[in-house]
Amino acid sequence: MSIVEKLCRTADEIRFDVQKLSTEKKNEALLTAAKKLVERQEEILAANREDIAAGRASGMSEALIDRLTLTGSRIEQIAEGLRQVAELPDPVGEVMDEFVRPNGMKIRKVRVPMGVIGVIYESRPNVTADAFALCFKAGSAVILKGGSDAIHSNIAITDALRDSLADCGINPDAVQLVATTDRAATRELMMMRQYVDLLIPRGGAGLIRAVVENSRIPVIETGTGNCHIYVDKDADLEMAMKILINAKTQRIGVCNAAESLVVHKDVMDKFLPMLSAKMQEYKVLLRADESSRKFLPLSEAATEDDFGREYLDLILSVKTVGSVEEAIEHINRYHTGHSDCIVTENKEAAEKFLKEIDSACVYVNVSTRFTDGFEFGFGAEIGISTQKLQARGPMGLREITSYKYLVTGDGQVRG
Amino acid sequence: MSIVEKLCRTADEIRFDVQKLSTEKKNEALLTAAKKLVERQEEILAANREDIAAGRASGMSEALIDRLTLTGSRIEQIAEGLRQVAELPDPVGEVMDEFVRPNGMKIRKVRVPMGVIGVIYESRPNVTADAFALCFKAGSAVILKGGSDAIHSNIAITDALRDSLADCGINPDAVQLVATTDRAATRELMMMRQYVDLLIPRGGAGLIRAVVENSRIPVIETGTGNCHIYVDKDADLEMAMKILINAKTQRIGVCNAAESLVVHKDVMDKFLPMLSAKMQEYKVLLRADESSRKFLPLSEAATEDDFGREYLDLILSVKTVGSVEEAIEHINRYHTGHSDCIVTENKEAAEKFLKEIDSACVYVNVSTRFTDGFEFGFGAEIGISTQKLQARGPMGLREITSYKYLVTGDGQVRG
Repeated sequence: MSIVEKLCRTADEIRFDVQKLSTEKKNEALLTAAKKLVERQEEILAANREDIAAGRASGMSEALIDRLTLTGSRIEQIAEGLRQVAELPDPVGEVMDEFVRPNGMKIRKVRVPMGVIGVIYESRPNVTADAFALCFKAGSAVILKGGSDAIHSNIAITDALRDSLADCGINPDAVQLVATTDRAATRELMMMRQYVDLLIPRGGAGLIRAVVENSRIPVIETGTGNCHIYVDKDADLEMAMKILINAKTQRIGVCNAAESLVVHKDVMDKFLPMLSAKMQEYKVLLRADESSRKFLPLSEAATEDDFGREYLDLILSVKTVGSVEEAIEHINRYHTGHSDCIVTENKEAAEKFLKEIDSACVYVNVSTRFTDGFEFGFGAEIGISTQKLQARGPMGLREITSYKYLVTGDGQVRG
Repeated sequence: MSIVEKLCRTADEIRFDVQKLSTEKKNEALLTAAKKLVERQEEILAANREDIAAGRASGMSEALIDRLTLTGSRIEQIAEGLRQVAELPDPVGEVMDEFVRPNGMKIRKVRVPMGVIGVIYESRPNVTADAFALCFKAGSAVILKGGSDAIHSNIAITDALRDSLADCGINPDAVQLVATTDRAATRELMMMRQYVDLLIPRGGAGLIRAVVENSRIPVIETGTGNCHIYVDKDADLEMAMKILINAKTQRIGVCNAAESLVVHKDVMDKFLPMLSAKMQEYKVLLRADESSRKFLPLSEAATEDDFGREYLDLILSVKTVGSVEEAIEHINRYHTGHSDCIVTENKEAAEKFLKEIDSACVYVNVSTRFTDGFEFGFGAEIGISTQKLQARGPMGLREITSYKYLVTGDGQVRG
């Protein structure tokens, strides 16, 4: 039996130990882990330095080195994340529905843990602790496969987590790391449907595509966001500009940042000159369609390809439309189903947009940057789902649970 | 572009036409379709006779011929199914949650259609109308791939459905049949993730395994049920026998039928002689473990393999245990996570069983045969999910929908 299969089988075997833990016990373990990560700071930072050295030696970019790097204050942030998850309400056991059938049998629909969750992620070592905390609090055993670049950091963090569990009398196999840099291990993990109930990829578009295409385990697709801001003919243009600047520039490398502006022809002559000035100020390059370019002297011509791009950069595509219907059609064609916003004072246009845009989060007069588990009040986030099965949009604890039906009676049989 | 890709692309393109339909319009179409199926009875039966003749020519078993065969009264039943779906409440638009964040933005979580649903099924032609009705009422466009054996019947039924849609001014492409017997078409359909949101296989274990292993579209696994009845030491033994007989024999070829009896040692000497007599009466063959066989003179010795089998036949495996804990461990090891029952008067044992059995439906003193969308009061059923993502247990209309977040505000931006 391979290492990966052994890990998965172990997780499957001990799943009920995790499911049965009380809320208090789970919280105790999370707080213990927070403490231990800080106590073991020196060991973790030493392991992290090994990863950084290896990264530099292999010519890793400074942006990636930064993602990989831990510091004392970053470890404190990771610990704080664990403490926050301890404070969240436990989703397990929640009665979601309850009813009695005409034959007298009582049916309760109750939230239960998923069982075993696998998380495949890239270079940020903080995901090791974050993903553990959420899956564990939601009552599941977790198998982590982090990026090869962070292997030493991930091992050091996982060791601290496992020791914390053991300190609390919990089976440490509730969290296991696939501690290899062998890519075949990732492919093998994706085949382990008989042991693993859910697989969550966290990372760039390439990773997510590879998991979606190869996994036999049910996957929740997270991530890619080609988010649109549509400025309607009845928009408050100052508000529109404020929202656009926030959505485009407040943080550019994130999935809920705006990538595309759609603007109604009736307000082009007012809005686009404002845009031209503001985007210059914020150093945003515009890729615009023909009708808009006469108001945007510094823009480049947009190609078909631009409308479908998630730039994650200081670039914005600009498309003009003649109606809210045309805006909706354009957005539904090119977006990734993540987050899209209409800016308008017109209730009818707003309602139409809310109803017909097929995205996880549809906004009226609010920046798309709010698509986030913390901002939505879920207290945590394991990712943002862009698929429609199981969970859509920000995923907190509930979104990584399942349910079962409990049926009680006094001898009912079917006639 | 292949036929399959063309169909899928068409469904994707017209998905919003279906999503936008009012409840009244959808119901009108369902009632029109019910009427048309009855009106076109002769054409449909003629098509069905072609399938039956082909089946007989290729040596199809009588059981399969029976599944394939339509009659006037079966067509009336199919029509009645459509009328029932018309009467169900429309899940689309239901507000699932609603809250206001501290920054004043209001978030509503609203039920929305899945979009495009594919259904792959075997020889029963009634699934063609049933699957259409449920997916359509839930607001999705549907692509059907039925078994090759029923190709003429499926074409005739789909034609009637499409003509009914057209009669109501609805785009007939809301339902499309992959009208080929080419197996490559099924494999191709499973690759169409860019157009299809959800794939539901309905049929035998082989079909379901093939879909789960090959599909790139998210799948809801339905079906296989190795259901257990556990007779506790504190069981009312008469009730236990009544439930067991019902669960094992009321209908043997279905997924919610019992396949395994687990019995507490303390009641063996009383329960098993009763069992021996009753099972002889119902012609059920017993495959029993060693401790139980002394009470079951007509039984065969059970092998390890027997405990994991879904017989779908007049066979029952028998396992003895020393405690409810041992029963739970045995069941969680061998079941398929479908439906399992404890018969007991002991509240503590019942609670433990409900909590720790990891199945879609867990029963106390009720036959497992109730795991069914109609029996649960969902008014319809597209299948019974044995996976944990999206839906578990009986799936009605809600279980084949998704949701989205509608966020409204007055210019909120992220700080």
